[in-house]
Amino acid sequence: MTLEEIKKQEPWVARGTIVFMSDFGLVDGAVCAMHGVADEVCQHLKLEDLTHEIPQFNIWEASYRLIQALTYWAPGTVFVSVVDPGVGSQRESVAVITKTGHVIVTPDNGTLTHVERQVGILERRRISEAVNRLSGSQRSYTFHGRDVYAYTGARLAAGVITFDEVGPLLDRQPVMLSVQDPVVKDGALYGSIDILDTRYGSLWTNIPDTMLMDYGVKHGDMLSVTISHEGRIVYGYKLRFCRNFTEVALGEGLVYVNSLLNVALALNQGSFSDTYGIGTGEGWLIRIERG
Amino acid sequence: MTLEEIKKQEPWVARGTIVFMSDFGLVDGAVCAMHGVADEVCQHLKLEDLTHEIPQFNIWEASYRLIQALTYWAPGTVFVSVVDPGVGSQRESVAVITKTGHVIVTPDNGTLTHVERQVGILERRRISEAVNRLSGSQRSYTFHGRDVYAYTGARLAAGVITFDEVGPLLDRQPVMLSVQDPVVKDGALYGSIDILDTRYGSLWTNIPDTMLMDYGVKHGDMLSVTISHEGRIVYGYKLRFCRNFTEVALGEGLVYVNSLLNVALALNQGSFSDTYGIGTGEGWLIRIERG
Amino acid sequence: MTLEEIKKQEPWVARGTIVFMSDFGLVDGAVCAMHGVADEVCQHLKLEDLTHEIPQFNIWEASYRLIQALTYWAPGTVFVSVVDPGVGSQRESVAVITKTGHVIVTPDNGTLTHVERQVGILERRRISEAVNRLSGSQRSYTFHGRDVYAYTGARLAAGVITFDEVGPLLDRQPVMLSVQDPVVKDGALYGSIDILDTRYGSLWTNIPDTMLMDYGVKHGDMLSVTISHEGRIVYGYKLRFCRNFTEVALGEGLVYVNSLLNVALALNQGSFSDTYGIGTGEGWLIRIERG
Repeated sequence: MTLEEIKKQEPWVARGTIVFMSDFGLVDGAVCAMHGVADEVCQHLKLEDLTHEIPQFNIWEASYRLIQALTYWAPGTVFVSVVDPGVGSQRESVAVITKTGHVIVTPDNGTLTHVERQVGILERRRISEAVNRLSGSQRSYTFHGRDVYAYTGARLAAGVITFDEVGPLLDRQPVMLSVQDPVVKDGALYGSIDILDTRYGSLWTNIPDTMLMDYGVKHGDMLSVTISHEGRIVYGYKLRFCRNFTEVALGEGLVYVNSLLNVALALNQGSFSDTYGIGTGEGWLIRIERG
Repeated sequence: MTLEEIKKQEPWVARGTIVFMSDFGLVDGAVCAMHGVADEVCQHLKLEDLTHEIPQFNIWEASYRLIQALTYWAPGTVFVSVVDPGVGSQRESVAVITKTGHVIVTPDNGTLTHVERQVGILERRRISEAVNRLSGSQRSYTFHGRDVYAYTGARLAAGVITFDEVGPLLDRQPVMLSVQDPVVKDGALYGSIDILDTRYGSLWTNIPDTMLMDYGVKHGDMLSVTISHEGRIVYGYKLRFCRNFTEVALGEGLVYVNSLLNVALALNQGSFSDTYGIGTGEGWLIRIERG
Repeated sequence: MTLEEIKKQEPWVARGTIVFMSDFGLVDGAVCAMHGVADEVCQHLKLEDLTHEIPQFNIWEASYRLIQALTYWAPGTVFVSVVDPGVGSQRESVAVITKTGHVIVTPDNGTLTHVERQVGILERRRISEAVNRLSGSQRSYTFHGRDVYAYTGARLAAGVITFDEVGPLLDRQPVMLSVQDPVVKDGALYGSIDILDTRYGSLWTNIPDTMLMDYGVKHGDMLSVTISHEGRIVYGYKLRFCRNFTEVALGEGLVYVNSLLNVALALNQGSFSDTYGIGTGEGWLIRIERG
C-alpha cells in the first residue's frame, strides 16, 4: 500500500488499539494516567501494553522491544513509546507511519532505530503541542508521556485528528543509534550484542543463525569469542556451539541459537552478563572465529 | 453538576469502566479473580488497573496513588481499591461519589483521605453484603476484594444496581488519615513527606513549588532541611535548591521540584530514602528554612 | 450441560475472552506478542491476564494458579497457559473443554492436573499445527505460546474454527502430576504442600480446615508437624494452631487457616519457606499430629 492509500484508509481508526511502552514501571500511577487520558479521548479504544520495565532511559532497549512486538500486531495498531531521558529538552516529539501501516508516537531520540532499519518509515511528523496537548497540562513539563504522547496517540486512533493534523511534516529519517551490521570480514563474524535475556542473563547478538551456518560452523565446534566495549576488549574465550545448555558443564559458557534465530551466549545455569560484566546496546560488539 | 443530577445520569453506566488497585502483587491469581468476577457480572465492562504494587497494608500510599490517577480518567469511571489490613474486622465497606463524578469502592480505612481533601466526596454508602456479595462466597471471609468490592463495582458500572442500592446512606465524611497541611510559620516552611519515588529513592513532599517561590527561594540557594518522624528529628542538613540533579556532586543531596510541581529531595545517583532511613506517610514531617 | 450442548452453543464465542498465563515475566515483549497475535485474529476479543510470574518451568504452580482463577470467570472463557519446559519436544499441545464450560489451551505436561481433579475435563483434542499455527512462524520452534497457543485460543474465541477443528480427538485424560490426597491415617493428618504464598513465605497445604476440625483440633492446641521431600524428612517441630500471627512471638512458627480455607504454615513476620528451606509442589508432603 502506498503512503497516500494508508493515510486515506486510516487503518488506526479501524483498529482503535493503542499499545503503550515505557520505563515507568508499574509501581506508581503513571501508566494508569496514560491509559486514563486515552480512555477519556475515546472510551472505545482498546488499551494494551508492551512492557513498562524498559531499564530507565535505555533507548536502545526501547528500540529493540518495539521491533520485537510491532509486527505481531495488525497494521493500524498505534504504539505509544515513552523512554525519554530528554523530556523537556530539545528532542523532537514525533508520530510516524511505518511501511507496515503501524503508527508510532514517541520522542525521536533513537527509539525508532530498529523499526527504521528492519521495517522502514514512510512519513514522520513533529507533534504540534499547541493543539495536541492535554488541556490544563501546560504547567507540567516533565510528563509528556501522559500529556502529549498518550493524548496524541488516542486522538489518532479515535479519528479526532488526521495524521496530517499531528503537526508539520519532517524529513523521513528519524534519529538513529549506531548499529553494527553483522558481517563476515577477514575470516571472522562481527556483530553487536543487542539485548539481555533478563531471566537468564544470556546475551543475544544480531548475527543470524544462517550467517553462522554459511560460515561453516557445526554443532559441537569450538568458537573463539571476543567481546569489546567502545573499542576495549572485555572478554575473550573459547566456547562450544551447542544445541542445548546441558551439553556443557554447570557454570560453563556456550554459544547457541535463540528464539529469534540469532546467535546468543549463555552460561549453563548461570548469568553470562553478570559473571563477565557484559552490557548490551550501542558500543557492545562481538567477534566470533572458528577454532 | 449536583449530586442528584449525577445519580440520575449514572455516568458510571455510560463509561462501564473499572480501574482496580490493590497490594496483592501480580504473582498469584488474586487480581485475575477480581477481573473475572467483574467480567461475569457484565462482559462489556472495560477492566483496567492502577497498580497492584502498593506496599502491603500501606493505606497512605493507596490514598496517594488514588488521587494521582483519578482525575486523568473520565467522570463516571469506577475505582475499586483493596488495601485492607482490617479485612474481616469492623471497618466499613463503602462506595462513594466524588464531586468530579467518579465512584470509589473501598474499605473505609483512610484510603479516601487525599480524595476527600483534594476533590471532595458528595455521598457515602455502606455496602450491604446481604445483597452485594458474590453468591457462594460467604464461607471465605478474607477476600472481600473479590467477593464484595469487585462485585459491587461491577454491578454499579453495569447498571445492575443504582447507587442507592449499594446500601444505607452514611454521613459524607470518610475515615481520614492525619495530614500536615503545608504552611509558612515563624519564617520556615512546614509540610509532610508524602511518598517515595520508588525508582530513585527520592522523597516527595506536599509543599507546592509556588509556596517555595513565594517564600523567596531561588535556584542555587542553600536551604536548611529538617525531617522528623513522630516528633523525633531524624535528619538535619543544608541542601542546595537545584534545577537538575547534576548541579551537585555524585551522591550529594539536593532540593528540586518534581513532576507534580511539589518540593522533593534526592541524592544525585543515590537513594535519599535508603541512605538516611527516611520513610513516608503519616507522621513524617519536613521543615525547610533559608540559609 | 452435556458436552454436545456446550459444543453446539460455543459459549467461548459468546464470551470472546482470553485469559493468558505464562512464566515469561513482563520485562520483554513476549506477552505483548501473544496479545497481538490474538488481536489480529479478531479485534473484538477481550484480552486478560492471570499472571506471567509463574516461576520458570514450574508446571505444578501453573496447574495450581489455573484452578484458583478459572471458576471466577464465566463459562466459555478461554484460558491460554504457556508454562512449557518441553517446548519443541514430544509433549502434546492440546485444547480441552472442562465440565464448567471453560476452554484451556496448553501444553499437556501436567498443567491440567488440578483442573482435572477439581473440575473435570469433558473433551481433549490435539492441536493440529498444520492448520492452527500462525502463518510464517514455521522456522521458529521455541515460541509455541505465540505461534500455536495464543493463535488457536483466539481462533476458537472468535469462532474462526469449531472445537472439533482444533485437531484429532484424544482420550479424555490429560497428563497428571502426582498429588497426595489429604487423608487421616493412623491418627495423623497427611497432605501435600501445594504452594508458596510469595509475599509472606507462608506454605499452603491441601488439607481443608474441616478435616483439621473433624480431627478434633482447637485454636491454641499444639501440633506436631513433619515435612518431607521425596521421602526424606526436612522439618519436624511443634507448632501452635492460631487464629492470628500475633498469638506467637516474632519469628516463631504457627499453623493457621488460609484464605482458601486450607491449613497453612507461617512465621510471625518471617518466611517459613526461606527459614527452613521448604519447597512446594510434587514430592513435598506434610504430616500433622496432635500434641
